[in-house]
Amino acid sequence: MCNHCVIENVKQNMLSRRSLFKGAAFAGAAAMVATTTPREVLAQPASKVFDLTHAYDSTFPTFDGNPGIEYEWAVEFAQNGYQLHKLTIFEHTGTHIDAPFHFSADGTSVDQIEPEKLVAPLVIVDITDRAREEANTAVEAADIEAWISANGDIPTGAVVALRSGWATKVKEASFRNDAEGNFAFPGFGKSATDLLLTLDVAAIGVDTLSLDPGNSADFAVHNSWLPAGRYGIEALANLEELPVKGATIMVGAPKHRGGTGGPARVLALI
Amino acid sequence: MCNHCVIENVKQNMLSRRSLFKGAAFAGAAAMVATTTPREVLAQPASKVFDLTHAYDSTFPTFDGNPGIEYEWAVEFAQNGYQLHKLTIFEHTGTHIDAPFHFSADGTSVDQIEPEKLVAPLVIVDITDRAREEANTAVEAADIEAWISANGDIPTGAVVALRSGWATKVKEASFRNDAEGNFAFPGFGKSATDLLLTLDVAAIGVDTLSLDPGNSADFAVHNSWLPAGRYGIEALANLEELPVKGATIMVGAPKHRGGTGGPARVLALI
Repeated sequence: MCNHCVIENVKQNMLSRRSLFKGAAFAGAAAMVATTTPREVLAQPASKVFDLTHAYDSTFPTFDGNPGIEYEWAVEFAQNGYQLHKLTIFEHTGTHIDAPFHFSADGTSVDQIEPEKLVAPLVIVDITDRAREEANTAVEAADIEAWISANGDIPTGAVVALRSGWATKVKEASFRNDAEGNFAFPGFGKSATDLLLTLDVAAIGVDTLSLDPGNSADFAVHNSWLPAGRYGIEALANLEELPVKGATIMVGAPKHRGGTGGPARVLALI
Repeated sequence: MCNHCVIENVKQNMLSRRSLFKGAAFAGAAAMVATTTPREVLAQPASKVFDLTHAYDSTFPTFDGNPGIEYEWAVEFAQNGYQLHKLTIFEHTGTHIDAPFHFSADGTSVDQIEPEKLVAPLVIVDITDRAREEANTAVEAADIEAWISANGDIPTGAVVALRSGWATKVKEASFRNDAEGNFAFPGFGKSATDLLLTLDVAAIGVDTLSLDPGNSADFAVHNSWLPAGRYGIEALANLEELPVKGATIMVGAPKHRGGTGGPARVLALI
């Protein structure tokens, strides 16, 4: 099916399910489906905290290949009885946020992302098997449709993350490159994010170095998703431990004024 | 009452309440009181996200008076179609974490704080009225006892924060200093943190520049609480919007390896 057709199909199906639920016989179910807000997700019993954040230092892989963080002691324990570092950090380092301002001259900066968009139902689209065969595979609109067919509508305000298995090889060269030294990792395809732009989705997330696949020539997802005012999360960890539906993600985005993004602490609860 | 007596009194009262609840007639209540974990708190309906984090830049007040963050463009939008900063950050800047490693040569670094300690019931001890009269007032053991008398036991794994009203004047000189230019702001007294060290409390938090009050000569709380393996949160915002009991705090501590702390995104849910 063409990408445009998939998007129309998903929208029609969601609309028709919602009209159906508006019938009196389905009033209870309607409330459940149509108003699944992040806060209602949290109202479910939660029993465990998951850490979706890589610990990072100057050896952590970066897109441009340069160290993303460097440390210098500003105060030393031996002389002062306490200690602290002066850090040099490139914003797009470690598990981190891409704010709209990263790819737009006047978009929302990282401190301006509404707090309500930082606590959200987490949708995981698993492409691990495909990624094992083709490093640069992308989540496309058909994958989103398949997720909806299997799991129901994307919850309101969700963060939609792809799970490719890449996080488990963060210390290997193949996290970033293929054997020839070219970028090679999974990402989102524009057909998927074009579909997600028609829905109330706060952010997309990846367990790789970039929202776009490694072989992207045009950064089509960065160049459309971020300028549309949505944000992204790159280099997520531990998605393997979570179900594809039912977790709540808590995105500890940094709050320095005018930031294009930055290292974040990302947790999830089930 | 002497501080030691207050601590003993609180412990005895908590123990006797728990023995009482172990009686068969109180089995249900016992389960509720004795096992109020952070996860169970989250199981309550949550309706709103609160942002306990100040947005910050190089003008944000710091303990040493020097800018805590500086920005430089590493990639500029006009030339590249995207942009990102190189940041210089002193770890103890903005709303931030004090890890045990900040005040101990070999304590837990910020990346090593267990994720389970980052999602917790939030206890707020309000000293706003007193702080208005005496800037360097401290939360003492008696304040903790008074909170327990009014609200019940401190929940297991809690973050205990003082609310002094200081966050609302973060842009004024009086956030940091008195008219003579001396440090002047509320903090925790060691009698309070000595009591909290006997309980399962993950962290303390303040809406001021330091865990210790501004006029502290010896940083007694930093020097005892942090080396004991507990962490702190400084410069919290918006505690005024929360009840003294019932909120859940989510502490987005940074995860750079070997850090003594760092800017954090702190949210709360009710």
